[in-house]
This record gives sequence, structure tokens and C-alpha cells, in this order.
Amino acid sequence: MVESPRAQSGEVSASQQALALAELFSGVRQYSVQICQPLAIEDYGLQAMASTSPAKWHLAHTSWFFETFLLKPYMPGYRVFDDHYEYLFNSYYNAVGSQFPRHQRGLLSRPTVEEIYAYRAHVDEAMLQLLAGTPLAAAEDVLNRTELGCHHEQQHQELFFTDLKYNWFQNPLYPAYNASPLPTAPTAAPLQWQMFPSGLHEFGHDDDNFCFDNELPRHKQYVERFSITDRLSTNGEYLAFIQDNGYHRPELWLADGWATRLERPDWTAPLYWVERDGGWLEYTMHGLVELDLHRPASHLSAYEADAFARWQGCRLPTEFEWELAAASAKQAAADETAHPVSVSPVGQLWQWTSSAYSPYPGFRTAEGAIGEYNGKFMANQLVLRGGSVATSPGHYRHSYRNFFYPPDKWQFTGVRLARESEPS
Amino acid sequence: MVESPRAQSGEVSASQQALALAELFSGVRQYSVQICQPLAIEDYGLQAMASTSPAKWHLAHTSWFFETFLLKPYMPGYRVFDDHYEYLFNSYYNAVGSQFPRHQRGLLSRPTVEEIYAYRAHVDEAMLQLLAGTPLAAAEDVLNRTELGCHHEQQHQELFFTDLKYNWFQNPLYPAYNASPLPTAPTAAPLQWQMFPSGLHEFGHDDDNFCFDNELPRHKQYVERFSITDRLSTNGEYLAFIQDNGYHRPELWLADGWATRLERPDWTAPLYWVERDGGWLEYTMHGLVELDLHRPASHLSAYEADAFARWQGCRLPTEFEWELAAASAKQAAADETAHPVSVSPVGQLWQWTSSAYSPYPGFRTAEGAIGEYNGKFMANQLVLRGGSVATSPGHYRHSYRNFFYPPDKWQFTGVRLARESEPS
Amino acid sequence: MVESPRAQSGEVSASQQALALAELFSGVRQYSVQICQPLAIEDYGLQAMASTSPAKWHLAHTSWFFETFLLKPYMPGYRVFDDHYEYLFNSYYNAVGSQFPRHQRGLLSRPTVEEIYAYRAHVDEAMLQLLAGTPLAAAEDVLNRTELGCHHEQQHQELFFTDLKYNWFQNPLYPAYNASPLPTAPTAAPLQWQMFPSGLHEFGHDDDNFCFDNELPRHKQYVERFSITDRLSTNGEYLAFIQDNGYHRPELWLADGWATRLERPDWTAPLYWVERDGGWLEYTMHGLVELDLHRPASHLSAYEADAFARWQGCRLPTEFEWELAAASAKQAAADETAHPVSVSPVGQLWQWTSSAYSPYPGFRTAEGAIGEYNGKFMANQLVLRGGSVATSPGHYRHSYRNFFYPPDKWQFTGVRLARESEPS
Amino acid sequence: MVESPRAQSGEVSASQQALALAELFSGVRQYSVQICQPLAIEDYGLQAMASTSPAKWHLAHTSWFFETFLLKPYMPGYRVFDDHYEYLFNSYYNAVGSQFPRHQRGLLSRPTVEEIYAYRAHVDEAMLQLLAGTPLAAAEDVLNRTELGCHHEQQHQELFFTDLKYNWFQNPLYPAYNASPLPTAPTAAPLQWQMFPSGLHEFGHDDDNFCFDNELPRHKQYVERFSITDRLSTNGEYLAFIQDNGYHRPELWLADGWATRLERPDWTAPLYWVERDGGWLEYTMHGLVELDLHRPASHLSAYEADAFARWQGCRLPTEFEWELAAASAKQAAADETAHPVSVSPVGQLWQWTSSAYSPYPGFRTAEGAIGEYNGKFMANQLVLRGGSVATSPGHYRHSYRNFFYPPDKWQFTGVRLARESEPS
Repeated sequence: MVESPRAQSGEVSASQQALALAELFSGVRQYSVQICQPLAIEDYGLQAMASTSPAKWHLAHTSWFFETFLLKPYMPGYRVFDDHYEYLFNSYYNAVGSQFPRHQRGLLSRPTVEEIYAYRAHVDEAMLQLLAGTPLAAAEDVLNRTELGCHHEQQHQELFFTDLKYNWFQNPLYPAYNASPLPTAPTAAPLQWQMFPSGLHEFGHDDDNFCFDNELPRHKQYVERFSITDRLSTNGEYLAFIQDNGYHRPELWLADGWATRLERPDWTAPLYWVERDGGWLEYTMHGLVELDLHRPASHLSAYEADAFARWQGCRLPTEFEWELAAASAKQAAADETAHPVSVSPVGQLWQWTSSAYSPYPGFRTAEGAIGEYNGKFMANQLVLRGGSVATSPGHYRHSYRNFFYPPDKWQFTGVRLARESEPS
Repeated sequence: MVESPRAQSGEVSASQQALALAELFSGVRQYSVQICQPLAIEDYGLQAMASTSPAKWHLAHTSWFFETFLLKPYMPGYRVFDDHYEYLFNSYYNAVGSQFPRHQRGLLSRPTVEEIYAYRAHVDEAMLQLLAGTPLAAAEDVLNRTELGCHHEQQHQELFFTDLKYNWFQNPLYPAYNASPLPTAPTAAPLQWQMFPSGLHEFGHDDDNFCFDNELPRHKQYVERFSITDRLSTNGEYLAFIQDNGYHRPELWLADGWATRLERPDWTAPLYWVERDGGWLEYTMHGLVELDLHRPASHLSAYEADAFARWQGCRLPTEFEWELAAASAKQAAADETAHPVSVSPVGQLWQWTSSAYSPYPGFRTAEGAIGEYNGKFMANQLVLRGGSVATSPGHYRHSYRNFFYPPDKWQFTGVRLARESEPS
Repeated sequence: MVESPRAQSGEVSASQQALALAELFSGVRQYSVQICQPLAIEDYGLQAMASTSPAKWHLAHTSWFFETFLLKPYMPGYRVFDDHYEYLFNSYYNAVGSQFPRHQRGLLSRPTVEEIYAYRAHVDEAMLQLLAGTPLAAAEDVLNRTELGCHHEQQHQELFFTDLKYNWFQNPLYPAYNASPLPTAPTAAPLQWQMFPSGLHEFGHDDDNFCFDNELPRHKQYVERFSITDRLSTNGEYLAFIQDNGYHRPELWLADGWATRLERPDWTAPLYWVERDGGWLEYTMHGLVELDLHRPASHLSAYEADAFARWQGCRLPTEFEWELAAASAKQAAADETAHPVSVSPVGQLWQWTSSAYSPYPGFRTAEGAIGEYNGKFMANQLVLRGGSVATSPGHYRHSYRNFFYPPDKWQFTGVRLARESEPS
Repeated sequence: MVESPRAQSGEVSASQQALALAELFSGVRQYSVQICQPLAIEDYGLQAMASTSPAKWHLAHTSWFFETFLLKPYMPGYRVFDDHYEYLFNSYYNAVGSQFPRHQRGLLSRPTVEEIYAYRAHVDEAMLQLLAGTPLAAAEDVLNRTELGCHHEQQHQELFFTDLKYNWFQNPLYPAYNASPLPTAPTAAPLQWQMFPSGLHEFGHDDDNFCFDNELPRHKQYVERFSITDRLSTNGEYLAFIQDNGYHRPELWLADGWATRLERPDWTAPLYWVERDGGWLEYTMHGLVELDLHRPASHLSAYEADAFARWQGCRLPTEFEWELAAASAKQAAADETAHPVSVSPVGQLWQWTSSAYSPYPGFRTAEGAIGEYNGKFMANQLVLRGGSVATSPGHYRHSYRNFFYPPDKWQFTGVRLARESEPS
């Protein structure tokens, strides 16, 4: 949910803001369509597990968001595209109503892809009308929710990539999203450690731009001195962990991680590593390629990340340690290959932190259904920081709190090491 | 597997037989394509449970059957369409090799529908060449296997309908396969009982035409006197069972049936009945329609059929009782609506028998992979007799033994009552 | 349920019958207590899976049977021992009322063992009074039900052994029921085949003594010619199957059997075989002993029995083939060791047949709760014939139809081979 | 694991410490036996779910701890009681070796209760010899580990109660641990709020006495201003939540909590509430009693506690807020009834906090198997503070960090409310 310092600033008029938002809106909406171009019709409906929604569903749900939270309440005379969609494309908003079962989204052959694109066009047209014609009184809500809807859609753009990759991976043909060859990674430099002294600092979002509600309020935390590496850990480093029997040494693992490991005999490597003829391949958006030891290790669960860190004599950073370190770093340009090649500490892979996803002191959710956006998920998940190659352009922030369950491997996740003090 | 009295007759030459089979082959292959016409590309990939394969998979697997058992062994110089298909479209033939997991068939967005049709065309062309050019020495095997392949494909044509219906039923839009309205059923006449005296009879296939191996050998069975109804039980009769609390009276159910009932709170009616506003609708290939009390009750598990029969003071017939009764009956023409409308005892719905699916005395399977066709499934299943509206034209025989597990509801199944003696 | 030709004979008076039954009753009741002597208090409560009830529960349930079906309806002024027991010790009689969940029987630490023995004494005393004082009008029902109750208790005596063995097997201390050493088996003679010509025969119970309802009515079946072995297959013969890779060759297995095999990596041998240091031990009622190659192979599922038979080029007999063969055989004396040592075709191990457990033509169940005794289980199970070392003295009949599910391994089950004709 | 400031103090001699510890040891060991007095032999073996170990197992495992970590490494010539016990009674120490499966502990009828008591006597005797005769060089480790073993056993004493209560609850006889009537609770006073200003504070254990490793290091945290109630919430207050439809309003629940709620139709109240004839009873260690509205609400999952708090417009406290509030409170005497009667904020029920169980900055585990004591569980669990009526005398500390999974209900858990500011 959006906290909107924008509307409070008073420096720009509502109509100027509406214009700017219409441009953001159009760009974001277009990007969702653009990233679907390499898909066959058959690919749009795939759902290999409950967590990985079909591409088609992402396209519909993001439109549903605008229809439900903007067009229905704020646009007089808005004609609903199809009455069934309120139920079919509601993700988890109980205050809106009940939802089509999440794990069955892949069974919705109808509406067809063509119909979903027509739905998108219908919503786009109405939204631009709404933004152009909103009376001043309602402006703040409309603008805030539109901005939220754009960032919401960007989140689903990243999920489009992560879900598609997982869904395609089930197919022994290993389809490639990008037909061009995956560039070779530059040689990773030796790990360097950055030291930070203990101290009381402020954390959370702190400027006038958009942020989600879970990045607020900005508040103080006392952080003990720590060291953190200047880059992500590589495939080569992770391979050494495997070769040192890391997947068979319970002393390296959290108890829940080890229990998961025992239940999942296929957990012998990161998610997309494929053993063949005694060597390792990796499934990427460019298809199945040879494992490149200088690329960052990706698609790890938090359990694996934690065990790997312990094997190194290190630990995962807290989200506050990470944020302190990030303040001095620059975001790398998102990788165009949709696969991480550089080990830059930002913009390549989401990094597991040891911090439970919980509310900042004084956190408040919005009234009504939109209040379900973030707050209700603050249980059993860990915070990830840093963005990834699948993160949409313009979506990244240092204060951004992504969150997944410790066993989740299908996101673009990696490891960055921390410890109390620099190794001697 | 085929037992081929044909080739032994010697009355017609191999080349005449090849010509006839080429015609059968072309007709069957074309029919598979024809029944797919109402589908959108998106519909071809649906798989709602492990048992219901995607339409696309049926199209590919039936081609795989000809490629694997005819073209590869018997056609010199045959070029395999795609090496991956041997694994992807093998259903359960362990002697051929390992198989892509059955429950994941819906995840194969690639090969695309277009590619599968190209595969079919490739196989069709090669098969017709093979049939035209087979040297006399190999003729018997080629002809037998081709005939088997045609009957195999007809079985999958029925599964195409049953699977599609189940897969679509998960979608609250309830897609219609046939846009025309479902005809009203004629009023069902009162049940009549046919009496049969006890005696020793022969059962199993007994003419020169094709049959599956499980219909052989023809053999003797002693059957005690019994009565059987002259038609299927209707929706109206089944509704009376529901209204008499039939789903809540354990004394009417087999113990395993009752245990299943308790685990499945959705078992309150036949599979496709939908309760709405206090009344019953039924999902059909014509979409969701009002329940017609004169249509035969369909899509019942054996447990429900058995409980319903017991509630009537009756029981299910054995497969031998059924076959005796069928000898005097004629097969009704298959219903063009793809939904049973008439209560004719043959050709509308498969009828559960109380007979376990087990080998006839002296049953033998073929050598090699083709021997896996029927024999290995002779455990835990019940025999169904009678054919259904989804059975392909020309596929029905009185001696035909269909088989499913007692809890299965997604086939076109119905009930025909039997008892020791005519009710007084 | 009992069919009672006795009471119809009119040759002996009801009071003489009552005297004889009181003797039977006392003997059976005493035997249940006697076989519990080797148990520690802690052993009485074990339940390692839903199917294996605690010894204590068997002691209570068999008393409940007499209390529910005899004392409550027929004994004026009978004082119920404890009102809770009707619910706690009802096994599956829905017409009596709801039942304490079967899989939780091991959680009933109370009533204590001492209280259960007091319950037994209370029931015994009342039953003997009832048998002594029943007025003539009610005699037939009382006598029939008492006789049924005795045979019912004998069935639970066998379950006492099978369940205890399974429950103890979970304990790495491998407790021994019998402290004396298990005798060495005599050398098994080479397999001999008995031939039977085809013909029409009568099957089912045929004398004046007690039988269960599922053995009736006596009726005709036509049986094709077949051969059957004169003894059980041995551990040595089964070991050869294992060593010939039998557990890894799907072509030997029924499809459902193979699926079970794949889900159960511990299925690499009969249930109680324990691999240690490259050799095989076997858990017996005498504790863990070295595998004796001349003892009959025991504790096999029907799937394993079937695969083993197929590997031998044979098959399992039908229950009618078995009964024909048994007519000429004598029952061996039950083995006192509670472990099969001899390969006698009767009285050592229950033998899987290929016959589904289904009603004989004209089968009828009794009215009321007692009608739930056998009939409702006639689905998904196979008939076993032959009795075992755990069968109580006097309980065996050639027409006896035992029944279990194909994957069940914890009963005293073995294999006897059949085929169409004698091997040449 | 123990951090031992004691041994570093140098103020008392090792032999004086050994004497004091021998006294602690004897008292703790005796208390374990004492609390088992109301049990029948049959009760010692119960295990209703994987988390609830049998009483017998607790008695054995706590002895195993002393045998494994003290007697084997430090006592020359120690004779192991039974070689099998190393495997049978190891809980989760992978560095010691593999473990008998946790969920099957209830299947160990052998060793018998008598044998376990003999094992305890054997260990007790050896431990007292060890404490009397340890040479100075090894003293520190022996003393530290003995102290840890005593606190470890006290933890299992609490689990003895929580597990027994859960195990007995499955029995419709509702056994009573304490035959005396449960005292009526005093009327709960209206909730009062204590305010705390924001500030930087130190947290964690801070004196010379024993603590577990997870309470260390003492470190700084910045805490924003907050309010917390002066007592636990009552059954009456929780009943109002139920009556206000709290179990059917997803907006009050965390998403994971709501998902659990939907999967568990029996989640309609705290664990031990039993609805009967329209009213509520509660299962207690005194048996089934009428619900007392003034007793603290107990046996809640964290999800229920959180939903209840949200319904009140409040939230759960963090563990640091709780510790600040506790610093000014006194621990109430443990309730002798083994059921909470008073609403005192300490010593009645463990209170869920919103804090994930994670390491304090600089946390270190011990070397070897003992390092598995606490650290490996720091994932997916929440911290609970406050102690309960089942906590052993002398075991409580303000800095004590108990931890369970959010859905867990079988511990003595309750709710204390917090919020940012006092309600106006």
C-alpha cells in the first residue's frame, strides 16, 4: 500500500500529477505486454505449483487491480468488462470477496489470451479517462491508488519472469525465453569485506517518492558492528560448498532447513542446476547452458543460503545491516539478459537476510481491502533486499522489503555474507 | 492387445486387408482431429487431475503409438519426428522406456498444438506408406498392430471427451463444447425386469472381428438365475435416493465407499450436478443446464451406483449377467449430443458391474511392450459394460470390457439394476 | 455372520446346545487371556498403524461384542459395565452408533489393562448366566449369536498375533514373544504339481457346523483345468526372485503393485526381513533370527506374491481352484511356535488368491448391525485361503474366506503357485 | 547451552560448586519422578502427535543427556546402562548420531517403565560419584554441563505436563491428573495499561547465575514508546472475541493464520475448550470443568493470539517490550493446581510475542553436539516470555526466551496486549 508524500507536498498541482501518472501508467502497462512477446499461446496458461501463476493470470489480475480499486469506486458509469472476473482474478483480497482457488489458476483456459488482452485494453482506456477527468475532491485517492497499481503491476512483472522460468523448467525441452546466447560473466574479484561500526541509525523510506507501506515508518535501530562482503557469492564458491559435502552435513543447517532437505531428495544444488554426465548445467532464460563459475549463485532457499554462509564461517546479514551497506552502494543497471551475470551487490539477485518480515514500529495498514496488501503476510517469511535482474526498471529502492518463505527457491535469490568482524 | 482371427482366415489377401485398414486408419485419425474443432488453443493443454490428460497429449500419444509400434520397427529408413517424443508421449510402457510424469502432462506447453498437428501429419504419411508397401513376410504383425492402434486411438477419443469435460468443469465459466441446446429427454418408461434362468454359458469375444486381448479366451461360466432392468436408472430416480438421505446412511454403502464419502464432502450428488438456489443444474457438453429427470443418471462412482442399487433393494449385475442380457439387446445409435439423453441399456452410459477386472481363464498377454496394454491393470478395478455417448462410432462390442476404479466418477458411467429374482 | 444349520436340526435340545456353547465360550475366552501372558503392561497399548489394534483393545472389543449383541438385548436387568465402552470399543458397526477413531486406539491409556480384565470377567459371568437361563423362545438367536461371538473372538486372536508382531517390529530391540529358539525347518521337498481337469463344481460351506455368512450360499462354478503346487513357496525360492532383481523389473508387476513399490522404498523384501551386514535376518515371534531358506516365505503383499508367481511363469490360484485342491488335503496341526516352519499347503500361511472378495450368488446379510459383519467389506480386497500358524485351534475350514487388501503385508501370508497346465 | 559466569568468578571453589550442584541435581532428578506419581503404567507411553513425547521418553532422555555429555566423556570406567539407549533416547543431536524417529516414540513399549527407572537410578548414582570425584582440571566443563543438564531436565518437566495434557485429551474419558477440584479464579480486575517511553536499553541475561546461550550476549536495542497491559487476557474476554465471530473474519487474521484456520475446522476456540449442550467446558489437569471466565485464556496459537489482539485494536508485544515491562514486575508463585487461575503477568502462561526467534547480535553456539541445543532452531518460531504454571520451581528468568511455532497450541500459552500508546 502506498504512503503518499507526493500529494502532501502541495508543490505540484493534482492535474500535473495526473499527467505524470498517466505516463507512468501507460509505460508500465505496455511493459507487461512487451515482456510476453516471446510466449506461445500455450505458454500463457502454465502453473506448475500454487505459487507460480500463469502469465495470463498476471495480465488479468493487474488489470483487475485497477478495475477494482479505481474504476469501480471512482469512475461514474464505468462498465465492468465481465462480471466473472471479480472472482476469477482476485488474488487474496478477502474484503473484496471470495477468490478462485490459487492452485487452480492454470486450469482457466477461458477467458482466452485474446480476451485477456481485450480486458487490458478496456481497462487502459477507462483508466486514462479517469486520470484525465477526476474531479479535484477525489484526486488524492485516485492518484495514490493509481501509483500503487503501477508498482503493483511491476511486482507482477518480476513474478512473470520467476513463474515462467519455474513453469518451463518442468518441461524437458527447456524452452528459452531469449534466443541469444547468455554472455560470459566477467571474472569475479576476490571477496572484500566492508566494516561498519556499531551505532544508532534510522531505517526505512525517507524521501517524497513512492514506497510501500511496509517500508514505513522510518525509525531508529541500534546496529552492532559488523562486516559485509562487497559482492554476491558465485557459482564457483557455491560449488565448493557442494563438493565439500555441504548438502550432507546437518551441523551446517538450521533444524527446519535440514528437515526440508531430508524431505526433498532433489535438493542437491540450487534450483536450476541440472547434473548431466557428471557435470553441471544451469537452466536460464536463455535455455540450458553450462554452469559459469563466475556468475552469482542464484535460486537458493534461505536454508541453503544460511548453510552456505555457516560453512564459510559467516552468516546472513540482517536487513538493517544490508540497508546500511546499501546506502553507500549504487544500483547496477538491470541486466538485459534476464539472468544475473555480474556479482554487483545490488540489482542482480535478491539477497536473503536473517530478518523476519515483521512490521516496523508504528506500522499501520490502510483501511479496507487495500490494507491487505502487505501487512497480513508478516509471519513466517524473511526479508530479502537488493532487487534482481527480473525487477522492472525504476522499481528498485534501498528501503525495499521483499519477502518470501525460507524454503522458496524459485525467485532470483542469492547470498551475500556478513559476520561480526572482518576475518583476520 | 489385438487377437487377430482376421489374418488367420486366409480368405482375403494381405494387400486387401492393408487397403481396408488404410481406410480405417484414415477415418480414425481424421475423427480425432474433427472432435478437437471446438477447442481454443488454450483448451488443448488442460489437465485438472492426473487421470485427465490434455487433449494435446491424446493427439500426440496416439501418434506415438503408431510411431513406436509400427514405424520404428517395421519401416526401413523411417525418420523420427522428434527424439524427445519417445519419452514425452509414452503413457505407461515400461518396456519402451521411462515416461514423463503423468500428473505433469498439463505442463508441456511445448511442443505447441501446431507442432503436434505436424507430428500427426508426419506419422499419417509414413503409416500410409507403410501399409501400402509392407512386404508379405511382415504383413501380419503390421496389420494386427495397425488395427490395434486404430482401436487404441478410439479409446483415446472417448477419453478426450471425458477428460475435457472434467477439465472444463473446474472453470466457473462452464464452457460449452456444443453451442446448440441439449435436447429434452423422452419420458422414461417404468422399469421392466428381464428374467434369466440359471445355466452354463460361454462368454467372451466370438467372431472374426477385432477384439482386445482381455475379451479372450471365450470360456464357460455358470450363472445363477437373475433379473436385470431393461433400461438405465434416471436422474429422477437418483434424485429420490438423494432426497431419501442416501448420502448420509452408511448402511447403504460399502465400507470403502463410505470412507471415501466421508473424505469427500463434495460427494453429495453425481459429479456434474451443481446445486444453485436450492435446485439442481447439470454440467454437460452443452454447458450448464437444468437437471432433466428423464435423462439417465450419469457420472457416478461404483460406490454410489452400489449404494443406490442397495437402496432400491437391488444390486449391480455381474459382467456375465450383463453380457447375457446384452445378447438380446441392440446397440442404440450413439447420441450426437455427447450427453446421454435416452435410457437405452446400451450405447448411452458405461454400466458398473460388480465384477472385478480379472483375467479370463487362460488369458495370455502378448510378448514385449504391447503386452502391457491391458493385463497389468487387472487389480483393484471393476468391469464396466455397455459403451457411452462418447464411445467412437464402430468401437462398441457386447464383449467389451472397460475398467475403472470404484471411486472414479469422470467417465460416462451409469447404473443398471439387477437382483436374484423379479420383484413381486 | 453365522448361518446356523445347528438350530434347524432339531436333533439336540436347545439346553444341550447351550451347554456345549458355554464350554466353547469359556475355552475361547480363556485362550484370549492365555495368549497375552508374555506381554508387559506397556505392550498392551501399542498401535503402530491404523490396521493394528492394541492387544488391550482386542480384549475389550471381543467383550463388547457379547455385551452389545447378547447381554444388552437378551439379558433382563443386565448392568452395563461402563457406559463409555459402547463408543470406545465399537469397531465399525454404524447401526450401533459412532466409533472412537480407529487410528487412535493406541491413545487410550485408560481404561487400564486391569480395568479391561475386570470388564472381561463381568461379561463372562453375565454370559454364562445368560446361556444357563435363556428362555426357549429366545434360544435360537442367543445360541447363534454366542457361537458367532466365539468365532469372532477367534478372529481377533489371530489379529492379536499379527498386530503385536507388527507393533513390536517398530522397536529396534525386536522383542520376542516366545523365548525358546525357533526350530529349524525341515528341508523343503521339490515342488510337485497337482492337475485338475475342467468341470462344474459346488463351492461354499456344506455341513451342519458353523460358518460365516460369506461362505454361503453353496453354489456352482465352472472351473477350467489347472495345476497347483503341493506346498508353499519357500524363503529360498523367494530369495532367488530378489536376487534376480525381481523388485526392479516392472514387467513382473501389476501396475498398481509397481506404483506401490515405487512409493515404498522399503519394499525390497517380505515385511519382516532385515538386511544386516549383507545377509538377511527375519523377525519372528521368537525375535530376530537368521533367515531359514526352507521355511515358507511369509508376510508378502498380494502384489509381491503375484510378481513372484509371474517370475516363475505361474500365477496365483483362484479361490475356487484353491478350494478344489484343498478338498483332498488335510489340515496340518497349527504350529506351536507362532512362526511357520513347515511348507504344508494348509495351516501354515494364508495364501493369496487372485479372486476378488465378492458375494457368492444369492448372498444375503443379516438384519441390523450384525449384517455389517462381512458384507460391507466386499470391495477392493482379495480372498485368502488356508489358515495360518496364528489361526486359533478349531477355527479353520476349507471354505473359509479371509480377505485383505493387495498391499497388506502384516498378516501371515504366503504364496502357492498355480498355472493352466503342469509344466512340461 | 550454558554460559557460565559462575566458573569464572573464582569466588567459590570448584568443590563447593560441585556440592551445590549435586544438591541441585538430586532435587531436579527427584522432581521428575515425583510429578509422574499420578500416572498409571499405561500413561507413560502415550504420544498423540510427533511433538508430544511419552512421559517415559522424557524420563529416559533427560538421563541420556547426563550419560552422553557427562558420564561417557568425563567418568573413567563408566559402564553404559544399555547400548541401544544412545540411539533410542537421542532427541536431535546429529553430532552424537542418528536418532530413533521422533513420531514413533510412543511405540517403544520396551524398555519398560521399570527399566527406565532403573536407568535413572544407574545414572544418578554415577553422576553423584562424578560430581564428588572430578579432578580439578575437568571441573569447569563438568560443572557447566551438569548445571545445563539440570536446566534441560526442568524444561522436560514442563513438557511432561504439556505433553501429558495433550495426550490425555484424546481420550473421551478426560483423565484428571489432580483429583482435587480446580479452585475458582478471583475476579479479574479491569485491564490497566503501563506506558513506556522510547529509548535505548540493554537486553539479555545480566547476572552470574545460569542462563541459556540464547539469552546472550546482553546487547542494546532501541525501543519506541509503547503501552502494555498489566495482566493476561481472560477466558471471558476471549469468549467475546469468539462470540463476535472472530474465527470467521479473515480481516483479523494473518494470512498464514487464516490458511491454518481453514485447514483446521476444529479451530473454533482455544485447544482445550469443549463445547457441550451449547456451553463451554475446559479440559484441565483437574479434568473437564466448566469454563471460568476469570481465568486467563490459555492454549492459544500465536495466530489466535494475534487475531484476538487485532480485534481489540491492539497487537502482541515484542520480546523487548515484554522484557522492559517485566523488569518492574515480580514473578508470581507458580500455581500448584497445574492450571492457571490468576491473571498475573508472569508465571501463569507463556505469552506470545511478535518477535521471531533469532540470534542476539554476536550470538555464538558451543563447540560440538551441545552447540545444537538452541541455535539450530532459530527459524520460523516466535519468542514466548513469562513462564507458566507448568514451569519448574526456580527455572524462570525475565530474560528467558522460550520458542514455539505460530500454530502450536499445546503449550501453556496466553495473551498479553500491547499497543503504540495508551487507549484514550
